[in-house]
Formats: sequence, C-alpha cells, structure tokens
Amino acid sequence: MSGSQGLRRSLVLRRRPAGEPRADDFALVEEPIPVPGEGEVLTRTILLSIDPYMRGRISGRVVYAEPVAIGGVMTGETVGEVLASNDPGFVPGDIVVGSRGWQTHSVSPGPALTKVDRHAVPLGTYLGVLGMPGTTAYSGMKDIGQPQPGETVVVSAASGAVGSVAGQIARRAGARVVGVAGGPDKCLWVQETLGFADCVDHRSGNLRGALQEACPNGIDVYFENVGGAVQEAVFGLLNAHARVVMSGMIAQYNATDLPPGPNLGFVVGKRVRIEGMIVTDKPERFAEWRALATPWVRDGLLRHRETVLDGLESAPEALRQVLRGGNFGKMLVRVGKEPA
Amino acid sequence: MSGSQGLRRSLVLRRRPAGEPRADDFALVEEPIPVPGEGEVLTRTILLSIDPYMRGRISGRVVYAEPVAIGGVMTGETVGEVLASNDPGFVPGDIVVGSRGWQTHSVSPGPALTKVDRHAVPLGTYLGVLGMPGTTAYSGMKDIGQPQPGETVVVSAASGAVGSVAGQIARRAGARVVGVAGGPDKCLWVQETLGFADCVDHRSGNLRGALQEACPNGIDVYFENVGGAVQEAVFGLLNAHARVVMSGMIAQYNATDLPPGPNLGFVVGKRVRIEGMIVTDKPERFAEWRALATPWVRDGLLRHRETVLDGLESAPEALRQVLRGGNFGKMLVRVGKEPA
Repeated sequence: MSGSQGLRRSLVLRRRPAGEPRADDFALVEEPIPVPGEGEVLTRTILLSIDPYMRGRISGRVVYAEPVAIGGVMTGETVGEVLASNDPGFVPGDIVVGSRGWQTHSVSPGPALTKVDRHAVPLGTYLGVLGMPGTTAYSGMKDIGQPQPGETVVVSAASGAVGSVAGQIARRAGARVVGVAGGPDKCLWVQETLGFADCVDHRSGNLRGALQEACPNGIDVYFENVGGAVQEAVFGLLNAHARVVMSGMIAQYNATDLPPGPNLGFVVGKRVRIEGMIVTDKPERFAEWRALATPWVRDGLLRHRETVLDGLESAPEALRQVLRGGNFGKMLVRVGKEPA
Repeated sequence: MSGSQGLRRSLVLRRRPAGEPRADDFALVEEPIPVPGEGEVLTRTILLSIDPYMRGRISGRVVYAEPVAIGGVMTGETVGEVLASNDPGFVPGDIVVGSRGWQTHSVSPGPALTKVDRHAVPLGTYLGVLGMPGTTAYSGMKDIGQPQPGETVVVSAASGAVGSVAGQIARRAGARVVGVAGGPDKCLWVQETLGFADCVDHRSGNLRGALQEACPNGIDVYFENVGGAVQEAVFGLLNAHARVVMSGMIAQYNATDLPPGPNLGFVVGKRVRIEGMIVTDKPERFAEWRALATPWVRDGLLRHRETVLDGLESAPEALRQVLRGGNFGKMLVRVGKEPA
C-alpha cells in the first residue's frame, strides 16, 4: 500500500461556498484505511477527475442529484488500483474506474467499479476523452446535436474535456466545426491540433462579429458548455432547424444571482430545438463510447490534453480553476503513483 | 356574385407598422373582379381568419416566410365560395379553404384550395378549431409536447384559437391541464366549458404563486403561445424531462426592442426540451387533424369559441385586438354572406 502509511485521507465539505469555491470550504480528514467487507473492493486512488458539475453538488440545491452533505466526502470520478478484493471479478493490481470521491483510498461494491486496460491508453484518458466528459460529448452529439455533413457546428469551451471531444465527433461526421475558447493559446490548439475550421476567442471583444465571420452560413448545431455572452451571441446566428445541446453553463456556476437569458422569440420561427442532457441518463453510452473511441485515442485520431495538479489537497484549487477556465484540457489531480 | 357589384376590394399594406398596427397601415384598393385563367378558380370570401403570425409578415423581417410587400395584398386564410371554375375539381357553390388574403374575391390555382363540407360543421371552424390554429395545437402536442396520462400540462393563451385546442388535446390524452388566460371571463370559460383543471389569470398579480398553487406537481408540458412574464413563471416550475412547445410569443409581437428571456441554466439539469414549430412544416397534419377532429366538433366533444368582426375594413382592428388579447376565442372577420 504505497504512500498510504496506513491512513486514508479524504476531503470533506466543510460549508457550502458562496460564489467561487475556496480551499477552506473543504477539510482534510484522516482515518484508518477501511477493510473491505463481503463483495467489496479496496482501492487506492491514482487520478481524480475535476469537473464543472461538482460546483452544483456543493451548492445545496437538488437539481438532478443529491448535493454532497456537509461533512460528507466530496464526490468525483477516479482511476484507482485494486489493493484487496472480496469480489471474484477483481484482483490486486487491477486498474478500475469508479465514482470514488476526493480520497486516497476507498471501499466499493464490485459492481460500482469498471476494470480498464492499463496498457491500451494513458490512465488519465479514462477520466477525460474516454470517460464521463467524452461520453457527454458523444451522447450529446448522437442523441441531440446530430451534425450532418456540411453543417456548421459551434462548440463552446472548445479546448475543454467535453468541448474538444464534441467538436472532433462533429468533424468526423463531416461538419464544419468552429470552436469558442478563452485566449489565443487555447484557440491555436483547437485549430492546429484538433483541426477545427476556426476558433473564436471570447475574450477578444466583438464576439458576435467574430462568430459571424467564422460562421458565414449560420450555425446548425451548438454544443453549449458555458452560457452567458457566448450563448447570446451563438443564439443570434442559429439557422432554421438548429439543435442546441445544453450540456452545461459553466460561466454561471459560481453566480449567486442568475442573469437573464436570451429572448426566445427566434425559437418559434426558426424551429430551433434546445435540449438539456445529463450523461448518466443513458448509462449504456459509457461502454459504447469507450469501445468506439479507445482505438481512436490509441492511434492519435482523437486528440486530448490534460492539466494535472499534484496531491489530493490541490483538488479545491483544481475545481476553482475549472470554473474560471484556468485549466487547459481535462483537469486531473494526481492522488497516487501510476503502477510500475 | 352577391355584394360584389363587379368590384374586388383588397386591403394592401401601406407601410410597416411601428409597434401596434393601425388601420392606416393598410389601404383599401378597389379593382374589377378578376377573371380566372386556365386551371384557376374564382372565389368570393365569406370569412377571413385573423392570426397573431400576421404581425410577423408585416414587420419586414424574414423569419420563416417572406414578408408582405409594401403595396401587396395582406396574407390570410379564408373560407370562400366558388363563383367560377376552370378546374374540374370545383364547381360554383363549392365551399373552399385557402390562403386567399384580405380581399373580397380572389383567383387561385385549383390545387391551392381545399373543398370542405359546408353542412358538417359551422364554416368558421375550418379557420379555427379545424383549421390552421387547431392543426398547430395538434402538431405541437403530437410532435413535441406528447402529454402522458397524469402529467401536468400548462397552456398559455388558453382561451385562444390554438391554446383552447392544445389543452383539450392534452385532456383527451389523460393529462391534468392548467390554462393561463387574461381576465376572469376567459378563465371561467376555460375551466367550465373546456374543462381544464384550473386556469390562472395572468392579469391578477402573483403569477408565479398562482401557477405554483395550480400545479402542485410541477409542469411536464408547456404549450407556449405568449412569452414574457408567463414564460418566465412557467419555466421556473418545469419538471425534469419537461417539453416546451414553442408555438408563439404573442406578448412581444408588437415590441420594437425584445426584452431578455429566462436564464436557461435549468434546461441542463432538468433535461428540458424547448422546441419551436411552424404548422406548415408538416403539411400532412392539416388533413389528418381535420379528419380526426371534425366528428368531435360536430358532437360537441371539442369546444370552441369565436369573436367575429363585420366587414373587410375591420381586419386591421381585428389584428390589433388579437395582438393585445382583446379577442375571446378565434378571431374572424366576416367578409361576405354565408351561402343560403
């Protein structure tokens, strides 16, 4: 049990943040590493995924899932290594993905874990391009966006874990993909590495004009990750029968008062479809996407990028960065060593 | 050619109205009654339908149809009588429905007209409950709203030509239907005659509280005809997986500057689907609905109500009333006598 020293460290929620979350909204708790019971599996955490949805879980509002309780371990997807198993499906050394929270060790029922191939692709990809964010992009495009060859698809937070995959899926479908991202570095990567036709820097001013220039034929599909001014600008350029995949609105996750939204008059005349999605509604999409996309990731056909912070204690800072666009690509926290 | 005196009277668009349309935005033109050419049919207008969408056609903006040109005859659905026919499908005395505009007589290619049964139901119903508004309600509920037994369905402009049918369709599907209407008389009719479970008067203040009380289990389907404050209040009460049929936003059709809309953050977490529709996108729905609903209208199972103004000249006033909710039920203009 390398690095554990017999203790399990967890980050629990101390209080619900007002606005931007802070490190002292969480508290570090140490306790003996638990012993797995019947059918249970003990794992150590290697990588922890940090995702925008976590802000909702600490807000105290029930939206689609119960909030994390005060004093409860913060929720989160992880890649871990099996240390001990009372489930015949797992043996020590197995690499597993599961929702095991912000902690160094955890005990889970076997069926809550998914064994993954530790040699096929880098472990971080199971939390990003092949994990929850990648599956969100896949499900959103397959079930709602449905980009067609020649259509114009706009993706916000285009360099992020969800957006980068959503745009690459639309490209594979033959669409012309335009990203929206924050800053020239991200926009450059979106164009050069992901191969989007264009990328608009939403920090550069005249968003509407820049988008219009990047989308001379209007916008047929919008994959929405941010909300706010980007949403307003994109909505003004939607074509008849456009589809809007409402995957997230990061720009307002720290807001204490929600700003008004765009006037929806255009939805009628243009027969626009705006539809919200939560990836767990179609759980079958996870395995479907992993099977489909693992060879693409392995062969470099599906590009991805990570920002990794070190140590469980950096998880609150990682969340703060994700909510203000301080990350570049998938945000991960390294909690334990990669197996040799 | 009763009442024609050899002249055809038409209302043409003089100028694009700023805000609320006025009588002098239109001009009366008299000219000889035209002679039908090959394959054409001459009709006289009996009833003219006045509908909110007409405001868009005189605004100069192209949304889903070309605007009416300055000097052009104002567009509109009518019931008329065939006076002369060069199409073997029609003979003088036939009653036809068509988009023949704001005029006493018109010449149309035969295929642009639909012959209807003059004895089955009152002629006005072909423009209301069985016509474009009724078909809008039908298509919106069938293709988007899809109310299920026990669900709560809210319909705005509930006493109007579209809303009254949308709500009755949802009732037939086993849903609990709540209307929103302007004033106690309309609300009483919506509850007593249409049989909605409840009706909220949007003029009575505390719209959100009244809606919440009328919808203790939240709202699963919203059939949107008005926009504005009603939309904001309803959106706040939508349930997970709710569907919003965006059929119209009458409240802002005269607006020169569009107000902001509701913040759309809830759409993600609640997986709401907001979808716009234009009835002519699925033209097959017209005959489908007429066949389905004619017996219901005849047998009193589908209730309807009309406001009829007299004389072609009253069409601009009728449009003004429709846009401010001054009508009660389907707004019609009587242009010519009913056949004996």
